[in-house]
Amino acid sequence: MTSTLVTGIAELTTCRSDVDDHVGPDRLGLLTDAAVVVEDGVITWVGAGREAPDCDAVVDVGGRAVVPGFVDSHSHLVFAGDRSAEFAARMTGAAYDGGGIATTVSATAAAGDDELRALLAKRLAELRSQGTTTIEVKGGYGLTVEAEARLLRLALEVTPETTFLGAHVVPPAYATDRAAYLDLVTGPMLDACAPLARWADVFCEPNSAHAFDGEESRAVLEACAAAGLLLRVHGNQLGPGPGAQLAVELGAASVDHCTFLSDDDVEALAGAAGTTSATLLPGVEFSTRMPWVDARRLLDAGLDVALASDCNPGTCNTTSMPFVIALAVREMGMTPAEALYAATAGGAKALRRDDIGRVEVGRAADLTVLDAPSYLHLAYRPGVPIARAFDL
Amino acid sequence: MTSTLVTGIAELTTCRSDVDDHVGPDRLGLLTDAAVVVEDGVITWVGAGREAPDCDAVVDVGGRAVVPGFVDSHSHLVFAGDRSAEFAARMTGAAYDGGGIATTVSATAAAGDDELRALLAKRLAELRSQGTTTIEVKGGYGLTVEAEARLLRLALEVTPETTFLGAHVVPPAYATDRAAYLDLVTGPMLDACAPLARWADVFCEPNSAHAFDGEESRAVLEACAAAGLLLRVHGNQLGPGPGAQLAVELGAASVDHCTFLSDDDVEALAGAAGTTSATLLPGVEFSTRMPWVDARRLLDAGLDVALASDCNPGTCNTTSMPFVIALAVREMGMTPAEALYAATAGGAKALRRDDIGRVEVGRAADLTVLDAPSYLHLAYRPGVPIARAFDL
Ligand SMILES: [Zn+2]
Ligand SMILES: [Zn+2]
Repeated sequence: MTSTLVTGIAELTTCRSDVDDHVGPDRLGLLTDAAVVVEDGVITWVGAGREAPDCDAVVDVGGRAVVPGFVDSHSHLVFAGDRSAEFAARMTGAAYDGGGIATTVSATAAAGDDELRALLAKRLAELRSQGTTTIEVKGGYGLTVEAEARLLRLALEVTPETTFLGAHVVPPAYATDRAAYLDLVTGPMLDACAPLARWADVFCEPNSAHAFDGEESRAVLEACAAAGLLLRVHGNQLGPGPGAQLAVELGAASVDHCTFLSDDDVEALAGAAGTTSATLLPGVEFSTRMPWVDARRLLDAGLDVALASDCNPGTCNTTSMPFVIALAVREMGMTPAEALYAATAGGAKALRRDDIGRVEVGRAADLTVLDAPSYLHLAYRPGVPIARAFDL
Repeated sequence: MTSTLVTGIAELTTCRSDVDDHVGPDRLGLLTDAAVVVEDGVITWVGAGREAPDCDAVVDVGGRAVVPGFVDSHSHLVFAGDRSAEFAARMTGAAYDGGGIATTVSATAAAGDDELRALLAKRLAELRSQGTTTIEVKGGYGLTVEAEARLLRLALEVTPETTFLGAHVVPPAYATDRAAYLDLVTGPMLDACAPLARWADVFCEPNSAHAFDGEESRAVLEACAAAGLLLRVHGNQLGPGPGAQLAVELGAASVDHCTFLSDDDVEALAGAAGTTSATLLPGVEFSTRMPWVDARRLLDAGLDVALASDCNPGTCNTTSMPFVIALAVREMGMTPAEALYAATAGGAKALRRDDIGRVEVGRAADLTVLDAPSYLHLAYRPGVPIARAFDL
């Protein structure tokens, strides 16, 4: 086992685990002129550069800032096809109701495994080149037993954070017999997919005819939990709905979107802090012109907040967590510190991972280096690719 | 002289000069499966790939989209120092009134020529790596005769589009004797800077105590015009003001910002189409939380509209024209086609350049390749660095 000293870190963001999450800037645990020792992919020492121990190898980052690798806890990364024309139409006034998902289902069905692998690899390289070191990947563009299992098999080749999302939309063939599709999802599809997934998710959205209402969502989630999957929920995206409170009730790790939360929803999520996070996806609001989430309200109420990309071909085709952070600061009332925390430690909590999201002894050496002197530049330099995952 | 065939272009945006600027998508002049021939840095042939002539060399872009290199007609690229803390304060509520410019003036004065050259070179590489092939660079962080001349000398090393901006703000030492500073700007400072600049600019903003009112701005611009400089104006950024109509009256090439335009201002600019452009800088609105400009109103009124970055350390520290395009589409009512046109041919017009901004025979071979099948991806994939200037 060789040790590597990463030095020359002008500013190190550690995201301390021994500071209360809701206390303010202390949570970032900033160190200046810092160094990190890595052995076998694990952090074994963190401290001041001048106190660093001797190591077998030294990497000098040249006075740059280092932050925990971004933990992107919500993506739909396995897909084929392009919906840029749908995007352009929406930008001139068309509404989004989830119906376009069928386009991606068709394009994905037409693509072979190797084509999907190549697309996935390209997206992974792209997000890594912008600082993301952990990615959750959902199915949901298959909607048959075989197709959903295929998507999860491909996803599992690249990440352990795979999510069964057979209940993404009701396929058109089942539009007049939704119960039959639910039977499929909670029966043979779940049987085929459970061994390939850590998580189960559902698009709980009574405001869309394509998605699932509260009772349907409950049935899916309960069946998935019984099959041993951990839960997460797409909720409250297009209007008020039962998603957030259902997530709390069932002990889901996160409810994602949270564009429309009632005071009762916020109170329920505050009571579930430590168990159920609110994951915000501002790239979706950007690319669909939905209202911005007031993250300030959620933070002030004591919720665990995560930020993720929701990278998908319909409503948010970005892999860039720095872009997500910049939006959260500009539009959602988060400070740059809160946004960075939510994109790292917050994402790790939303994935129930203790080994990532912070730069502390014993955790994975997932470091992201910024071509900048401070993490503030993630929001201060929007659109500029200053972050990249650090190869050790 | 060798000829190079650029082929494999899935979609080529040409920005045709023989189509009325205000007619709609035709202006983009899209060609599919296209090719371009370049000789000695100039485009000598544009057409269908299967009809391309034989050339000495062939470069295949592999089914990607190609657009004209972005023409960024407004930047403040020569500076030292970092104002990320001021940015973070503003994101939690502090207002912008131009006062922070003094911070950059001090930091820039403290930096040697080689330090400024290195910073400038890094920014140029950064913007080129995101597809910009022409950049205007202003002075304005010197505010003494020697310092403004130095900034322009450094800018002139990297671009012919240099702009004298001694009238950026009134330095604190002249706060009680503004007339003396105007005498300096229109006298010895102009004498020293005119040989180093193509353009003159003024921060015309009666709403800021640091900037210049209408009569002061007129005096500066008239003196600069008499010294042979072409004119551009920072106007109507922080509130209603005389900048736009002054720009029209004096035949300036552009009035930039245009955040607060009255109906009279719009009418004046519409009457000046062909001479005076309205240059929009949505990155500033993003990073200062000022209201978004309604570009739709300006386009529908027949104005010549350009998009630029305004890259500067205070109000918009981005070099990314793709980010600017994505904001224009999301926030300002521009279609993706209009935004791309404004960032290429529109920028060229705002710089009175006939040789750039379009992919046509006789123009410079400034091509930007997108890692995408269509220009739509510039707005469809926000925050993802898909554009890069093409090295031929
Ligand atoms: Zn999603
Ligand atoms: Zn400016």
